[in-house]
Order: sequence, then structure tokens, then C-alpha cells
Amino acid sequence: MHVMILGAAGMVGRKLVERIAREPDALGTTISRLTLVDAFQPPVPEVLRSLSNAMTFDLARAGVADKLIEARPDLIFHLAAIVSGEAEADFDKGYAVNLDGTRALFDAIRHEGLKSDYMPRVVFASSIAVFGTPFPDVIPDEFFSTPLTSYGTQKAIAELLLADYSRRGIFDGIGIRLPTICVRPGAPNKAASGFFSNILREPLAGKPAVLPVSDGVRHWFASPRAAVGFFVHAAKIDTAKVGLRRNLTMPGLSALVSEEIEALRRIAGDKAVALIKRERDPVIERIVAGWPTQFDAKRASELGFTAETSFDEILQVHIEDELGGRIA
Amino acid sequence: MHVMILGAAGMVGRKLVERIAREPDALGTTISRLTLVDAFQPPVPEVLRSLSNAMTFDLARAGVADKLIEARPDLIFHLAAIVSGEAEADFDKGYAVNLDGTRALFDAIRHEGLKSDYMPRVVFASSIAVFGTPFPDVIPDEFFSTPLTSYGTQKAIAELLLADYSRRGIFDGIGIRLPTICVRPGAPNKAASGFFSNILREPLAGKPAVLPVSDGVRHWFASPRAAVGFFVHAAKIDTAKVGLRRNLTMPGLSALVSEEIEALRRIAGDKAVALIKRERDPVIERIVAGWPTQFDAKRASELGFTAETSFDEILQVHIEDELGGRIA
Repeated sequence: MHVMILGAAGMVGRKLVERIAREPDALGTTISRLTLVDAFQPPVPEVLRSLSNAMTFDLARAGVADKLIEARPDLIFHLAAIVSGEAEADFDKGYAVNLDGTRALFDAIRHEGLKSDYMPRVVFASSIAVFGTPFPDVIPDEFFSTPLTSYGTQKAIAELLLADYSRRGIFDGIGIRLPTICVRPGAPNKAASGFFSNILREPLAGKPAVLPVSDGVRHWFASPRAAVGFFVHAAKIDTAKVGLRRNLTMPGLSALVSEEIEALRRIAGDKAVALIKRERDPVIERIVAGWPTQFDAKRASELGFTAETSFDEILQVHIEDELGGRIA
Repeated sequence: MHVMILGAAGMVGRKLVERIAREPDALGTTISRLTLVDAFQPPVPEVLRSLSNAMTFDLARAGVADKLIEARPDLIFHLAAIVSGEAEADFDKGYAVNLDGTRALFDAIRHEGLKSDYMPRVVFASSIAVFGTPFPDVIPDEFFSTPLTSYGTQKAIAELLLADYSRRGIFDGIGIRLPTICVRPGAPNKAASGFFSNILREPLAGKPAVLPVSDGVRHWFASPRAAVGFFVHAAKIDTAKVGLRRNLTMPGLSALVSEEIEALRRIAGDKAVALIKRERDPVIERIVAGWPTQFDAKRASELGFTAETSFDEILQVHIEDELGGRIA
């Protein structure tokens, strides 16, 4: 099987590649060829080097999608995107990459299929940003998409295209609406959602972190490991069971900031919790107030997608996957 | 005020123009200029001739939208579309007109606004085709869009763009999800939904009509006059009251085919009803089974949009507007 990962240098893309490196049959079939694509050079694990081809390409550039799809990958993970903040700040770039780039990919598959039979599986990274406030307390699977960012709009449009192209038999697509990923590895970033991870990751490393909202803020989480699990499961799922509604809200953990903090206390003690500095930021508070807090991800759960059920578990995943099992 | 109507030669477009001809202040402000655009030459009522400019243009052609928007219309009705059956049969044409043409229009407004302040009202004709089966018995305003046609997909995408462009202050948009229009004037057409109109219009004119489904089929209707009323109301509405959720399911009448027939009997007698020939068509039955039957159009109703509440009323509108008040 030829597997192509678009967005292979991103956080989830890299972890997906690492999972394949660790577990070569993770996707159910032997991988004969792995094509890794990103706007930045994607890293290739040593063990995958002989079958991998890592390339830097901008999906939004004319002809790029056609060129990539000429190689007829059997399974395509489409994780490439301009992130929310940048898509909001740069209208043209967000639409060019997140909408036009995605459509170019989908149309490249269509054109390839017009030459001779071709019907790859396409697993697409969507987001809970397709939803916009006001919400019910628990958002059901049939709740409408009224995004309040251009990023969310672009993801919602890509979902509609994915469903239509799948319905028409152009490819076999699944859209995965990711929860907020926590604990994000790496350095603190400026994303408005960064603090959810910062207040765990930094204290675990003996460093201070800022909490800009109240302890009573609730949000929707899954670990990086669970996110990779969603994509791996989506690659293998029997899409006949999914039917025509191809975009699925993934399961996650609905938790309060205070629950994050108490899990940190149980695992790393009061000393770690003391490193969290409370500095309310009204701008971040306002942004976060517009985010969903809980889903009833019934369909995805029934289809076998799973995520963590407590913050202790999410912390444990971080300690195992990022800290070699030990905390400072 | 400069008013532009895209799709001015279509059924609703023509009726909107006729309404303006009859009632020059229908849109709340004096119209100084009226631009009528369609792929076919739009008719211009005599009384509007001095202020009108009727043009044939294909919105999907490069540069057309920019050229039209250079004239900076204050109010734009966007009714231009490839219809459902054709958009399904011709993938490229449907996406080119319904998606790319709409986006070209929206982007032309954006580019014009970058030159100097410009923020027209845009009233967009969407459709209940943005919804796809299975449905709850009554579809609420917050039900999700999972279209099962390319046409419905293109309308749902246009809705998302309209909401995002409105949120960003590029224009002031409203999307109007039309019910099935009944009684459609003119000759019977091959649309799967045609029979809903045929079984009333033809017998009223003393002609036979075929009913290809059972009397127990339920569907969602509004008259052409109500449809024009939606667009006129949307042109004048205070969009602050609409908020960021700019796409509205219009009110309509949920009725059984048997209720259509009984209204016909009350108005035109048994002789008219006897002209309806029952010939079940499994293909049409299957298509119709996938259509929504009833909505709770709460938001639109609260915002002052109104439609008929009985089939007697819908028939009366047809007799008044199409038959000069008299039946055969």
C-alpha cells in the first residue's frame, strides 16, 4: 500500500509517522511506499527511510496536487492546513491553502480517476471549529455548523466537499473533527488555546506557566496519541458502516481547568501546581467563551473511535510519550 | 439605490422584477438603477425600462463578477444557479456556476471594498436541498447540513461563505432557504418535484396531470409570491437582529399530496380532481422519499418572514397571479 501524508511535518503528522515507524502494520496492510509532504521538510524516522519519500510542497500552488496524485497513493491523510489564527489574520492565505488546496487535492483524485479506476481512502483532519456559539450544553452529532472563524468555515466547506466527492464515488473519505489536543508537546505557543497544555507541560518540566482564564472554564480534549489513533482507525474503518455522513465529531474528554489542575496535583504534587500563575486575560477569556465545551460523540464512539476519559490518563500519555515515563 | 438581480430571467427572478415594477418602493428605498443579469436575456417590464440595464452574462466566466461589481450595486439578489438535476448530471458545470460563480461574486465585492468603503446587502437564494435524509419529523433551525446532491453541497458551501464574508464585514448577507415553490407557473417540467405543481396547475387549466407518488407523501411548500416576499423582506431586514447565523430556513406549509388534492376539489370541483391520473413511478418515489417534509422555521418566522398556511391559500395565489383571478 502506498500511503501519503499531507501535513507530515505538523505535530499530529509527525506523531502519525512515528506510530507507523513503531508499528509497521498499524494501518492494517503492509506499507510499500510512504510519501510525506509538507510546506516544511518532514522528518523521516530511520526505520522508514527505505520506503519513504519526503517532500516540501505548497498544496495551494497550481499543479502540485495533480503531481502528487499522479503517483496514485491508496491512502491519503490530509492534515495540511493554515492554523486558525493565521487563517483569520490572512484571508487570502487561509482560503488558498485550506479551501483551494483541499479542493485541488480532491479534484486531482477525480481527474486521476477519470483516466482509469482509482478510489483512494482520504482521511481529512477537520476541527470542532466548524461549530460556533451559542451551543447547547452538550452538542449532539446533528448540530449545525455555523463557524465563527474563517478557519472553521474552510474546514466546514472541506467537509461538505469530502462528503459529496465520497457520495459520488470519487474517493472514499472520512472527516475527523479533532478535539483540542492536550498536552501539546513543544514550547508554549501563542494560540489562544495554548494555556490548556502549558499549565500541565511546563510545571511537569519544573517551569512556570500562566493560566489566563478561571478554573471553571470547561473544554473538550484528547491527547496527541488519541488523535493519531483516530486517523489510524479512520484509515481502516469499513466506510459502509459510516454511510453518507462522512464527517464525525471525535470522542473526547469534557473537563474543567480545575480538573486539569487536580490531575496535575495527583501526579506531580503541590509543587507542580504552585508553578501555575493565575493572570486573567480578558481577550483570551472572550475567545475561549466562544468555544464548545462538550459533545455527545455518539456516532464516532459507536464506530469504534476512542479517546481518554480522565485528565490523569491524558497526563499519563504525555509522561509516557514525551517524557520517557519520568517527570522532573 | 442601485439594485442588481443575478438570475433575473429565472422564475423567481422574473417575479421579483415584476413585484418591483408593480410596487416601486417594495425594497424600502427609491430605486435609481436596476441591473438585471442572467445567462439568458432577462425581460424588463415597460415601467422599469428607463432605469434598467438587462445583460446576459455567465457568472462563472473569469472577470464577469468583477465587471458587474465595479458598478457598486447597493443591493444584490443572487438567484443565479444551475438547478439540481443539471448540477448532478454535470459535475464541472454545477461546481463552476454554483460554487465558483458565487465565490467570484463574493470576492469581487471584497476586492471592490479594498479600493474604498463598500458594503452591499447580498440576498442569496439557498435551498432546503442543503439537508439530507434521515431527518427528524420536524427539522429544527439547528439541524445540520448533510446534502445528498452536489447542488445541495454547493448551496451549503455558499451559505458558509456568505456567513464568513458577512462576519468579516465584507458584505451584509442573508441566505434564504426556499421551500419547494408551488404552484410553479409554466409548462410541466421534468424536475422530480414537478408533479406537486402539475397536479394543481394543469387541472385548473382543464388539462390532465400525472401523480407519480401516493397521496400520503408530505412535503414543504411556499408560493412564488411568498418566495418573492422572502427576498423583499430580506433586502430590508435589520441584520443586527439576524446576528452571525445568516442562513435562514424560510417558513412554509407542510402538507400532504391529499391536502393539495382536497384544496383543488374545494376550489375547482371533482371535475378538476378527476384530471389527476395516478401512475406511480418508483424512481420519483425514491427521490421524493429523501426530501424533508416539515421544518420548524422559528428564527425566520420571528424575523418576520411569512408564507402560506394552507393549500387553499396557495391555490388562490396561483389563480390571482397567473390566471387573472379566474379558473377554466
